[in-house]
Amino acid sequence: MKNVCVVITARPSYSRIRSALLYLKEDPNINLQIVAGASAVLDTYGKVVNQIMKDGFNITATVFNAVEGEKLVCSAKTTGLGIIELSTVFNNIKPDYVITIADRFETMATAIAASYMNIPLIHIQGGEVTGNIDEKVRHAITKLADVHLVSTSLAKERVIKMGEKPESIYITGCPSIDIAKNALINYNTLKFDPVKKYNGVGNLLADRNEYIVVMQHPVTTEIEDARKQTQCILEAVESIDKQIYWFWPNVDAGADEVSKEIRIHREKDLTNNIYFFKNMSPIDFLVLLMGSQCIIGNSSVAIRECSYLGVPAINIGNRQIGRERGQNVIDVSYTKNDILKAYNYIINHERCIGEELYGNGEAGKEIAKIISQLENISINKILNY
Amino acid sequence: MKNVCVVITARPSYSRIRSALLYLKEDPNINLQIVAGASAVLDTYGKVVNQIMKDGFNITATVFNAVEGEKLVCSAKTTGLGIIELSTVFNNIKPDYVITIADRFETMATAIAASYMNIPLIHIQGGEVTGNIDEKVRHAITKLADVHLVSTSLAKERVIKMGEKPESIYITGCPSIDIAKNALINYNTLKFDPVKKYNGVGNLLADRNEYIVVMQHPVTTEIEDARKQTQCILEAVESIDKQIYWFWPNVDAGADEVSKEIRIHREKDLTNNIYFFKNMSPIDFLVLLMGSQCIIGNSSVAIRECSYLGVPAINIGNRQIGRERGQNVIDVSYTKNDILKAYNYIINHERCIGEELYGNGEAGKEIAKIISQLENISINKILNY
Amino acid sequence: MKNVCVVITARPSYSRIRSALLYLKEDPNINLQIVAGASAVLDTYGKVVNQIMKDGFNITATVFNAVEGEKLVCSAKTTGLGIIELSTVFNNIKPDYVITIADRFETMATAIAASYMNIPLIHIQGGEVTGNIDEKVRHAITKLADVHLVSTSLAKERVIKMGEKPESIYITGCPSIDIAKNALINYNTLKFDPVKKYNGVGNLLADRNEYIVVMQHPVTTEIEDARKQTQCILEAVESIDKQIYWFWPNVDAGADEVSKEIRIHREKDLTNNIYFFKNMSPIDFLVLLMGSQCIIGNSSVAIRECSYLGVPAINIGNRQIGRERGQNVIDVSYTKNDILKAYNYIINHERCIGEELYGNGEAGKEIAKIISQLENISINKILNY
Amino acid sequence: MKNVCVVITARPSYSRIRSALLYLKEDPNINLQIVAGASAVLDTYGKVVNQIMKDGFNITATVFNAVEGEKLVCSAKTTGLGIIELSTVFNNIKPDYVITIADRFETMATAIAASYMNIPLIHIQGGEVTGNIDEKVRHAITKLADVHLVSTSLAKERVIKMGEKPESIYITGCPSIDIAKNALINYNTLKFDPVKKYNGVGNLLADRNEYIVVMQHPVTTEIEDARKQTQCILEAVESIDKQIYWFWPNVDAGADEVSKEIRIHREKDLTNNIYFFKNMSPIDFLVLLMGSQCIIGNSSVAIRECSYLGVPAINIGNRQIGRERGQNVIDVSYTKNDILKAYNYIINHERCIGEELYGNGEAGKEIAKIISQLENISINKILNY
Repeated sequence: MKNVCVVITARPSYSRIRSALLYLKEDPNINLQIVAGASAVLDTYGKVVNQIMKDGFNITATVFNAVEGEKLVCSAKTTGLGIIELSTVFNNIKPDYVITIADRFETMATAIAASYMNIPLIHIQGGEVTGNIDEKVRHAITKLADVHLVSTSLAKERVIKMGEKPESIYITGCPSIDIAKNALINYNTLKFDPVKKYNGVGNLLADRNEYIVVMQHPVTTEIEDARKQTQCILEAVESIDKQIYWFWPNVDAGADEVSKEIRIHREKDLTNNIYFFKNMSPIDFLVLLMGSQCIIGNSSVAIRECSYLGVPAINIGNRQIGRERGQNVIDVSYTKNDILKAYNYIINHERCIGEELYGNGEAGKEIAKIISQLENISINKILNY
Repeated sequence: MKNVCVVITARPSYSRIRSALLYLKEDPNINLQIVAGASAVLDTYGKVVNQIMKDGFNITATVFNAVEGEKLVCSAKTTGLGIIELSTVFNNIKPDYVITIADRFETMATAIAASYMNIPLIHIQGGEVTGNIDEKVRHAITKLADVHLVSTSLAKERVIKMGEKPESIYITGCPSIDIAKNALINYNTLKFDPVKKYNGVGNLLADRNEYIVVMQHPVTTEIEDARKQTQCILEAVESIDKQIYWFWPNVDAGADEVSKEIRIHREKDLTNNIYFFKNMSPIDFLVLLMGSQCIIGNSSVAIRECSYLGVPAINIGNRQIGRERGQNVIDVSYTKNDILKAYNYIINHERCIGEELYGNGEAGKEIAKIISQLENISINKILNY
Repeated sequence: MKNVCVVITARPSYSRIRSALLYLKEDPNINLQIVAGASAVLDTYGKVVNQIMKDGFNITATVFNAVEGEKLVCSAKTTGLGIIELSTVFNNIKPDYVITIADRFETMATAIAASYMNIPLIHIQGGEVTGNIDEKVRHAITKLADVHLVSTSLAKERVIKMGEKPESIYITGCPSIDIAKNALINYNTLKFDPVKKYNGVGNLLADRNEYIVVMQHPVTTEIEDARKQTQCILEAVESIDKQIYWFWPNVDAGADEVSKEIRIHREKDLTNNIYFFKNMSPIDFLVLLMGSQCIIGNSSVAIRECSYLGVPAINIGNRQIGRERGQNVIDVSYTKNDILKAYNYIINHERCIGEELYGNGEAGKEIAKIISQLENISINKILNY
Repeated sequence: MKNVCVVITARPSYSRIRSALLYLKEDPNINLQIVAGASAVLDTYGKVVNQIMKDGFNITATVFNAVEGEKLVCSAKTTGLGIIELSTVFNNIKPDYVITIADRFETMATAIAASYMNIPLIHIQGGEVTGNIDEKVRHAITKLADVHLVSTSLAKERVIKMGEKPESIYITGCPSIDIAKNALINYNTLKFDPVKKYNGVGNLLADRNEYIVVMQHPVTTEIEDARKQTQCILEAVESIDKQIYWFWPNVDAGADEVSKEIRIHREKDLTNNIYFFKNMSPIDFLVLLMGSQCIIGNSSVAIRECSYLGVPAINIGNRQIGRERGQNVIDVSYTKNDILKAYNYIINHERCIGEELYGNGEAGKEIAKIISQLENISINKILNY
């Protein structure tokens, strides 16, 4: 029995690994250890840990390592405290492998604790290009990781170029597409009323048949702009006579700025067509997207899942720069005008078709299979050139 | 005035940056901030911070972040606590640039605190290849750093290959060669009696004109072997009828194993020709090396400084694998026989000549000049392919 | 020059020490060092640190030590991280005395860091009795402190009984009364419109001449009740046809429960006469209280300042149990009926007169004088029996 | 089944609680959870955790929280890190009660984590008087604890005076006497050769029939004196022509000073009659004491166990001031002369008889019984006056 430990520190990390976890849990050779920490255990961010347990998983350990204050200094501290906490956990539960997901700042804590403790580190979703602190974190983790499970062949190529051994890299597709596939298959039966099912706040139009989803994250290297960016999107969507479903940002540095701007608009009663959600189950969220006119913002969901689902996306700014994208994406800058022009283009053209750019929806199965078959993973590596 | 902050966490880091600090301190455009932490503030490791102050530098802040226990788990914790401590320090002293040196595990704390706080990070000595956890740390820091000051053109090439922009990389030579140059120039005037000047323990031969220096560090990914490796070297040097000057290892995971083995030999009275030092000023150490028959062990000093100084080196095992090396180095495995064979070769052949493989001894000046001229360093970077 | 360091970790701590700080700052023998941390540096809690700087003080160091999550576990972690942070700060700024204020959970971090580092610890407001975790914290700090500045003679008596030497205890009155005195003296000139001056949210009645102030803190040992208690107060005040000014609770464990219940009532449109404030300058808050019909809740302000100011107070539940109280206080249980009965009693009787139970408004001056004259404080103490 | 969690952070804590643990482990109503941390998990201090496991106990969790550096600042940091680590552990293993032992600085971490998390805290050995930081820690923990298991009726009286409710205090005797009783009963069968059984270093006399035991701890509030004190004892015992068995001090602030002084004497070959031990099983240590002429130093063992065993004790300085003592103790100051005079007195008079001042050797049984029967322990308490 191999102890395979997955550290989940945020809502999107869980939705990306969930399909793999379902397979890992059933594998007779694997003792699955789930550790929840950072924003995944916080009420303010929808307490993903509850969802994980509802999905039938046991939580091996919970750690609280989010240091409060929306400042960059607290991203660093959260990571430092994460290392302290996770190293104790690893020392007590003795994983044979540790899995870390993608590129959020605090995932570095998982990577350092595991690699410093000579536990083979499996990194999911390396080799992508986005800019921002995520970019630095993602590639730094690649250099700490011993096994790389990447989404696309372009990602694999980049990881090789960075000096990793080809035989340590596996293309699995992106696990986020697995949920998208599920949503796609069950679209008709899954349909639901988001307002009834999830506790949001804000305003609802009488006619909500046509609606737009907004998901905007603050960019940590552009904190001072976070408020202006939010203002720009708010102004754009306030001028569209459709229901807007807006999702609150994660607990990144800058989230406070976003919230402040939203509050100002709400208090001035400008958000008459906007309803705000804190979180939603991944599959419900995708179903919501499929029924929408388009998604607006800077979320990676617009690039990945929406490419597979064929949901039009207005991607604003640089946050997703460098990511491979399908025909569903229209890139715009932070101006009300650009956003509205893109929206008009979308509603006046035929809806795009889904693509398998980020995988075919079997990534979870593939990831679980690879992990199950790992053997004699060396923690010693040197640059491949 | 730019605030330039250097974090020093260990003896070798200081000796590698000292020549640059002397120039930075004199630069009218620069306010030099020195932060001392980890083993640099510990008595057990010779309290380098005292030497720094004796050299005329002010210490802006001191942090204690070494978590005790020679286990790997404590390397992780030391790094986590380092991030917590350094982020507070950076937040209070507001550096415009942060400099981190080389690849010791705890330097990751400096790199994370700075990069997460959007402070441009300058990395010294990236792009080298050594194996071991140092290898992972070094390249991960490269992916977090914004400016790269490397030792050799081969190192630059590697950093470019990893995806960094060529214009962010500068070849400065290795600053350790600066001290070597100084030692070389002043060799005759600098000569000293190490036993009189430094408080060591152990045994001294009557005739110490010919002597050998041993410097052996535990390899963190081979902890279980640390004791056997020490035993092998002890047995080899015990059988040579020359004075041995042995330097205690740094506070890495595994140091305890090394110490234990040494203690056993000492208690069995096997170490009749071995005298043990805890530390020595960098320049005295180099002068000592220059007067020696050779250096034995796995220290990088044998590869870098000794190449410049023309000191024969018996390099054991894999710790320095991948580093560019000069003609002074004989690579051997961990067997008494190999070590003795190499030693016999050395004493029966003419002494090798120094080479400028790692620079010409002006690295400190060059580093200071580049830092002084840095302008508009962007903290946003993306993979260069 | 003596370095006197005050650690401020929350809004109420600052308002209690402010008058003393003004005197300490002017003392030529004292170098005042202010360290801000925990909720005092957080936006969510009104960022008291900004107010401190606006009041003309320098901040010597800022630390972020609030670990997020409204759970008790995070109160512990916040305290642990506080010790780590403050010990570094103390080690770098070398205070001759450290002052800690009252009994919030995180003040224990100040007390431990100082006493463990052999820095004489001055505790303000020991010897009071309240129940709750505050009670444990307050007396534990008394046992760590070397000098005790207490509010009343009863408090002094209690500190003596706990085994402290009488000569280490000084009655200064409660510094919170200093602001109250100031507010009392300048009441007419200070009057202001709270809604115009402070950014709140909620509903305003047309006629706001008569109003009630509510301040309710969750009780950490009764977390599960926090929501019911809030509900009870909400229902009571919703049924009174006067403007309610409600202040959000501090970041204690349980604050989330309070907020949730408020949110539910707001979303059901039950809070038509309630306007919510996050924070207010201490003096404005007191002026607001003086103009009010009464204060409702479980805040110590109702017991201390309102006793001096002669503001009727409906004190609910056990949080203030054991505190000395004046004739202004009506104690009730958590039932809508009790609260309304007390309110009716108040509006149908003549307003009470202020008392000097907690001092005469010169506590700050007195505290500063005592600290200025401290000499040869021993950090060695033993139980006085 | 009640989860009863004991946190063990040092060798002496374990020896004091061991007998109670043996009973608790057998209690069908109790699930015993042992957490090991601080110096209890460090090689340098004999790794007590190994002994605990050898004694048949399971370790529920291990934490590394000793921050290196013999400075006071690191005692504070170790405590802070301890709180962070233990709060996570408690949150994951959910104890119904937490037990903390005596008064070492880091036990405060246990006390804070438990009391802040509303877990009833049981304190063993409160109410004693010793001076030093231990004194502050011990009484502060009393103010945080909900149940007090004290050694003597005088201790109970003091805890009552500090304001605790009499019904929360139980006199159990001191558990250290349990081992002493065991040693006393089995003295003849237990006898052993300490040098053969334990790995020490130093010098042995040919005739070791008569010997003296030295145990000296640095006093944290007198660090600058630690070296002089050690020197004084060394000089005294060096002049006695008997075998000395000297025990290394714990990892308190100041331990380094003690070690330094010892090293100097060893290197000057002054310690010809001294053999140094790092640690010994508690029972072997007591048997060793029973066979000795006397114990010299400032350890509490001389006051407690030796009073029961009738071992003469030369107690030096103020560390044990205020502790109840039997007729076996001679108090002296730090002068060679005083120590030698006391020694001469001892060898020229009849050996004293054991007393039951600290209990009758059934404390462990009594402690286990009380804990087993605890019911409805309230975590709410207020000063009893």
